Amino acid sequence: MKCLSKGVMINKDFYNQDVISIQQFTREDLETLFEYADRAKKHKDKKLELLKDKVVMLAFFEPSTRTRFSFEVAAKRLGADVVGFSGEEGTSISKGENFTDTIRMLDSYSNLIVIRHKLEGAAKYASEIAENPVINAGDGKQHHPTQAMIDLYTIREIFGTIDELTYAVVGDLRYGRASTSFIYGLLIYNPKKLYLVSPPNLGAREEVISYLKEKGVAFEEIRNLEEIIDEIDVLYTIRLQKERFPDITEYEKAKGSYKITLDLLKNAKKGLKIMHPLPKLDEIDKEIDSTEYAAYFQQAKNGVPVRMALLSLIFGVEL
Amino acid sequence: MKCLSKGVMINKDFYNQDVISIQQFTREDLETLFEYADRAKKHKDKKLELLKDKVVMLAFFEPSTRTRFSFEVAAKRLGADVVGFSGEEGTSISKGENFTDTIRMLDSYSNLIVIRHKLEGAAKYASEIAENPVINAGDGKQHHPTQAMIDLYTIREIFGTIDELTYAVVGDLRYGRASTSFIYGLLIYNPKKLYLVSPPNLGAREEVISYLKEKGVAFEEIRNLEEIIDEIDVLYTIRLQKERFPDITEYEKAKGSYKITLDLLKNAKKGLKIMHPLPKLDEIDKEIDSTEYAAYFQQAKNGVPVRMALLSLIFGVEL
Amino acid sequence: MKCLSKGVMINKDFYNQDVISIQQFTREDLETLFEYADRAKKHKDKKLELLKDKVVMLAFFEPSTRTRFSFEVAAKRLGADVVGFSGEEGTSISKGENFTDTIRMLDSYSNLIVIRHKLEGAAKYASEIAENPVINAGDGKQHHPTQAMIDLYTIREIFGTIDELTYAVVGDLRYGRASTSFIYGLLIYNPKKLYLVSPPNLGAREEVISYLKEKGVAFEEIRNLEEIIDEIDVLYTIRLQKERFPDITEYEKAKGSYKITLDLLKNAKKGLKIMHPLPKLDEIDKEIDSTEYAAYFQQAKNGVPVRMALLSLIFGVEL
Repeated sequence: MKCLSKGVMINKDFYNQDVISIQQFTREDLETLFEYADRAKKHKDKKLELLKDKVVMLAFFEPSTRTRFSFEVAAKRLGADVVGFSGEEGTSISKGENFTDTIRMLDSYSNLIVIRHKLEGAAKYASEIAENPVINAGDGKQHHPTQAMIDLYTIREIFGTIDELTYAVVGDLRYGRASTSFIYGLLIYNPKKLYLVSPPNLGAREEVISYLKEKGVAFEEIRNLEEIIDEIDVLYTIRLQKERFPDITEYEKAKGSYKITLDLLKNAKKGLKIMHPLPKLDEIDKEIDSTEYAAYFQQAKNGVPVRMALLSLIFGVEL
Repeated sequence: MKCLSKGVMINKDFYNQDVISIQQFTREDLETLFEYADRAKKHKDKKLELLKDKVVMLAFFEPSTRTRFSFEVAAKRLGADVVGFSGEEGTSISKGENFTDTIRMLDSYSNLIVIRHKLEGAAKYASEIAENPVINAGDGKQHHPTQAMIDLYTIREIFGTIDELTYAVVGDLRYGRASTSFIYGLLIYNPKKLYLVSPPNLGAREEVISYLKEKGVAFEEIRNLEEIIDEIDVLYTIRLQKERFPDITEYEKAKGSYKITLDLLKNAKKGLKIMHPLPKLDEIDKEIDSTEYAAYFQQAKNGVPVRMALLSLIFGVEL
Repeated sequence: MKCLSKGVMINKDFYNQDVISIQQFTREDLETLFEYADRAKKHKDKKLELLKDKVVMLAFFEPSTRTRFSFEVAAKRLGADVVGFSGEEGTSISKGENFTDTIRMLDSYSNLIVIRHKLEGAAKYASEIAENPVINAGDGKQHHPTQAMIDLYTIREIFGTIDELTYAVVGDLRYGRASTSFIYGLLIYNPKKLYLVSPPNLGAREEVISYLKEKGVAFEEIRNLEEIIDEIDVLYTIRLQKERFPDITEYEKAKGSYKITLDLLKNAKKGLKIMHPLPKLDEIDKEIDSTEYAAYFQQAKNGVPVRMALLSLIFGVEL
């Protein structure tokens, strides 16, 4: 942290920085972020004027509701003006403009770009073109850093710590950017053990496995969730993203095989929490929604304060 | 009306309440609303800060321009932040998320949800899930309470009263939610007589007829508008909603048979006003737009002040 | 300029006026506009409250990103509330409402309409219906007055003058509304010479040629850009708008034949600047983007201050 001219403390890992991957942050960085998020929650019922002079551009080349709305609400509660699009309908992008020119334009009209894109590396590339900071709101199959921040914040909120817990990440670990970002996020901490639970062919990518080994974290790839259900503290489930499957039959096979049911949870460890980046389809039985297991609505709700925290740190204003 | 801690009078039928159907209100409630709307009109040229700390979510699952824009302008003129969507394009709803989860998310990001949905009961269902108030901006074939409020307010503005007038509601009374809501709204008052004018098979639904009988209002179902044109004060016309007809030939047959022309109006009662919730196609001859008969543009314009009034009453702020 | 009651100087050619064509302005008008734009640039990092009580309606019947976002940012930086749509998706326009009624509604909900439409004359027509000012953000094949303002402002910024320079306007001059507006704009000044460079059949329309003759400007229609490249100060290129070609083969033939390359620029006059209203496809080699020739990103960036200037003048507030 260093001091801005006007007496505001800034954190150089956030101030005026791009946010491309959760891997760029230290646990000290994240602790600062989480403290800001705690403060954001206290301002819940009040519109702030901290970012009154800023324009935030939401460039969602891929459709999104949850991430987009929570960024929009976060920016507006801080007083920023927000412009943007979701999907490529109604924009001149459909006229065939190249990505570089589009980013340059979006950059010149705003003070920060929040970008979602289906292609890996799109956010990084955008950050190299834009003069202003770029936040990756999900690109390709690996990076969704603000989701990982929310996930870690929610665990800290529930368990008081992120270290020394046993985690299972369940589902399609190959195509899910939220699950991969979550795993990368966990590796900033000291998990007791990490289970990667997936159907064959949908396991974590080679680079994720290498990274886990490099970090020296205890992890295990398994097929069957039931055998470890009495051991885990956090069960992180993700949607099988139909649109990312090259083959529909592969999707149908995978779907359902990792469904979370009350029956499965009979043997769960006391205090087990189920997380999900949402939207969920039928990966989790609806009856679970109203049980103590369900942490996913709390997780979703944390989208606003965590993103308020991040915007504040990037713009160097004190929440 | 009771007193909030800060000395603001609140009306318990509005304060923090859901608005699902016009039927939930008394004439005293509506009189309060109309007084607020009168005051909103006086603030026409001024942005207020009354809802500065609120976020209003516009959840239009069915497309809309008029209702959506007037809600958006109403909320913004009161100082609220507004987020939302129109149509399901560009949202993760197209990923197949269930309605319950979607509502829960929208609720957690905002202080009030305005919802439009093609399915009957969607607003009621949403209100049971959401912690914050829900306003029905039109669902299914019966309810569009804020439209009825605007209609009644416009009549009061023109005639000084809603009671003791003769009304005709004309067109497709079976599929039109605006006309049904208007009829329900009239029943809160004492109309002199109510004519329901429609082609066979497009008459008012059984539950509407029952409700009319229960309320003891003088009404008559007829086929021919011409024979009563010299008797009515208010002619309420609605669009034949092609998208609600199960059969295109049924639509073509109905279309045109209830068209309002200057010729028809030759025998009109002095002071007759034509209303229409808009958009209109060719139900009304274009030449009528510039005559004294046309009340529909005034009616449309009243969308903003009436919705400002409603938002103010729900949030318990004094306009 | 005359004085408003509150002591603000107003310019009667802008105050409360519609902006339909660049042809309606004098060079004095434009000089006032450009001075306002200079001032808007100085306020770059500050949200103003000048239009706090105004609602600006963005009615983009044709999709747009650049024009729409820069209008939206301009209005918001001045404190206005902004509502609107882009494309006809998600609006009730798709229900078949007539244009007159739609404009009347948009007008009744706002204090100013910014309209884009594919049909020639749509903005003019809208301005006859609306009580409040209408700004043409591009309609048909001829008029895009705010683009011309931005183009002229950028030239003034770079060259210190718009007079006595040699211009070439290159590409599809038949279907391009930006190029036609630019030519109309130039005729308010005294260009030294104007070259119109296009493939056969895509030359400037008869009315443009007549107007040029009427104004007595030195101009020449040529086919080959290379032969005049050592003579021109400003090279204005436009996109070949595929969607405006009646025949795809005509498009394919035209495309590429007027591509700007570094090789072509070897013989360019010192200080030559290339302009383009953007988005560009491959009319200009990507390598040129980072050279001194490229003025198009500066031009795009000027969209916000010039539109802020225009809004301020129309609403009679002093920037």
